[in-house]
Amino acid sequence: MPDTIAHLQDLRARLAAAPVADASALDAARNRNEQLTKPPGALGRLEDLAIWMGGWQGTDRPRANHPQVVVFAGNHGVTARGVSAFPAEVTAQMVLNFQAGGAAINQLAKQFGARMDVHALELDTPTADFTLAPAMDEGEFLRALQAGWNAVAPEADLLVTGEMGIGNTTSAAAVALALYGGEAADWVGRGTGVDDAGLALKAEVVTAGAAKHSGVTGLEVLRCLGGRELAAMAGAIARARVLRIPVILDGFICTAAAACLVAEHPAALDHCLAGHVSVEPGHARLLEHLGKEPLLQLGLRLGEGSGAALAIGVVQGAVACHSGMATFAEAGVSDG
Amino acid sequence: MPDTIAHLQDLRARLAAAPVADASALDAARNRNEQLTKPPGALGRLEDLAIWMGGWQGTDRPRANHPQVVVFAGNHGVTARGVSAFPAEVTAQMVLNFQAGGAAINQLAKQFGARMDVHALELDTPTADFTLAPAMDEGEFLRALQAGWNAVAPEADLLVTGEMGIGNTTSAAAVALALYGGEAADWVGRGTGVDDAGLALKAEVVTAGAAKHSGVTGLEVLRCLGGRELAAMAGAIARARVLRIPVILDGFICTAAAACLVAEHPAALDHCLAGHVSVEPGHARLLEHLGKEPLLQLGLRLGEGSGAALAIGVVQGAVACHSGMATFAEAGVSDG
Repeated sequence: MPDTIAHLQDLRARLAAAPVADASALDAARNRNEQLTKPPGALGRLEDLAIWMGGWQGTDRPRANHPQVVVFAGNHGVTARGVSAFPAEVTAQMVLNFQAGGAAINQLAKQFGARMDVHALELDTPTADFTLAPAMDEGEFLRALQAGWNAVAPEADLLVTGEMGIGNTTSAAAVALALYGGEAADWVGRGTGVDDAGLALKAEVVTAGAAKHSGVTGLEVLRCLGGRELAAMAGAIARARVLRIPVILDGFICTAAAACLVAEHPAALDHCLAGHVSVEPGHARLLEHLGKEPLLQLGLRLGEGSGAALAIGVVQGAVACHSGMATFAEAGVSDG
Repeated sequence: MPDTIAHLQDLRARLAAAPVADASALDAARNRNEQLTKPPGALGRLEDLAIWMGGWQGTDRPRANHPQVVVFAGNHGVTARGVSAFPAEVTAQMVLNFQAGGAAINQLAKQFGARMDVHALELDTPTADFTLAPAMDEGEFLRALQAGWNAVAPEADLLVTGEMGIGNTTSAAAVALALYGGEAADWVGRGTGVDDAGLALKAEVVTAGAAKHSGVTGLEVLRCLGGRELAAMAGAIARARVLRIPVILDGFICTAAAACLVAEHPAALDHCLAGHVSVEPGHARLLEHLGKEPLLQLGLRLGEGSGAALAIGVVQGAVACHSGMATFAEAGVSDG
């Protein structure tokens, strides 16, 4: 089956062979934008967004009528170190909440007309404590990547990947430290709400994890320091790249997972935009490294895909204007 | 008829007698927020927004299912001075475009499920050139205020007021200069796209207008330096205050009109939030004076209500989370 990721090399090859944005659709969308009944540039970033969507979708009339939100959940061995304000049981409890429609991401997906899928990834088998061993062995890692790869609906016109996993801001901080260096303190934050002592402990654990796995790069960082939900997000984002489905990145954890793909292929995230910047302090730093400017800055730090889901509304507004507005000629309006 | 504004004093009296946000609903909404299945504060500004909406709507389950966008159009005598990059005829042409559904605001209203109404205000009779005389006499001004007052749908649960009027960034800059002082250069911007010479001319015209009407305050500023569409927005925002309908302010012109109400009554805009900050440089300055932090910063400068309409999506996301999420108890999730 062509869509099996049997080896990491399979994923690398898919990324390397993935199509780029459609240059003629980009030109056509830019041309259309210039004719719409508004002063040039008056819709600001909405104009860039719509043109960018057109390039990925291969049309001068981009759309965002069928967004998909996919939420992955995983458990982390590193929670044994006491790095979270919530007990690990909450991961499974929240999966039930997602399935029952009670979480924030359910409301946001519904509000913006998105299909929502939830994938609980081997919750009864947490990853290994990454301060002691790689979080996942290669088989576990490939299964999680594959779960993400398979989760993308090919008919979606916009994708949001979200996550739930008690302990995963610690994992994401370790991934970021391994990818970009600096100090653990640059990358750790309060997550769901640890106190000062908890924050210091997170920094220690992150430092120990990065030291344990020093020298690894790219997807190996994700395997050694990530979690199943991070790996699955990376798999889904890679699949969307191959399918040319635009992706809205969510917060710190999603962005850390995505960043491991760039380390494998420089154009791996060209189809991604930053939905928001979280108050988790490492997030803004990650977005700078990736050269992505967030659409929203609203102080969110929930995860689940919530910030990206909120940004679906902005993208929908952008493509609605671009694809629905009349041109100066159609409307009989003087163009200055 | 109780809803006739026969004198400016009638509007002042309505503002003074307008009900404030419901304190017990605010408490109930805050209480509900604390029980929802998320870490405390994790939804950032969305939480404050939803609680604020609850206060104005008098419920702990606020909603934004029936937004209304109302767009007012007016013509400005000051366009004779050459302050706009577009000819004055474009105001009427754009009204036809609004009516035909071809403008940006039509697409945004539709995207977020808003009812949209358009009111063309005596387009064949531009206001007077405010450098020579008051823009409107009292009768004209009261008619425009009344048009705005009457335009609000009492069943709306959220209101956006937008505008179209070639020359109206010049008018708004003159209003802002009269209200808050400084130099004309602090308040003028490129509007639909004037060049450097046009910008210098705008500053001259704004300076002359403010000098001609020096010493006027509050609604008199709006009468002397504003336009019919600015007056109508002020009337609609005042009516929404009386009806306790939350309002999303749009850009520079809308905010300048609204600011004239604060000069009459300090709590006149308590029911308003800033939807976005425009690139028109006076807008951020106005929002600072009003103490309003914008929800979006996306480089828009179109007017029509477009930035505020885009922010409807954010408000809808906020109230959807607040009113739809499960509590920890309902979902059986540990609360840390």
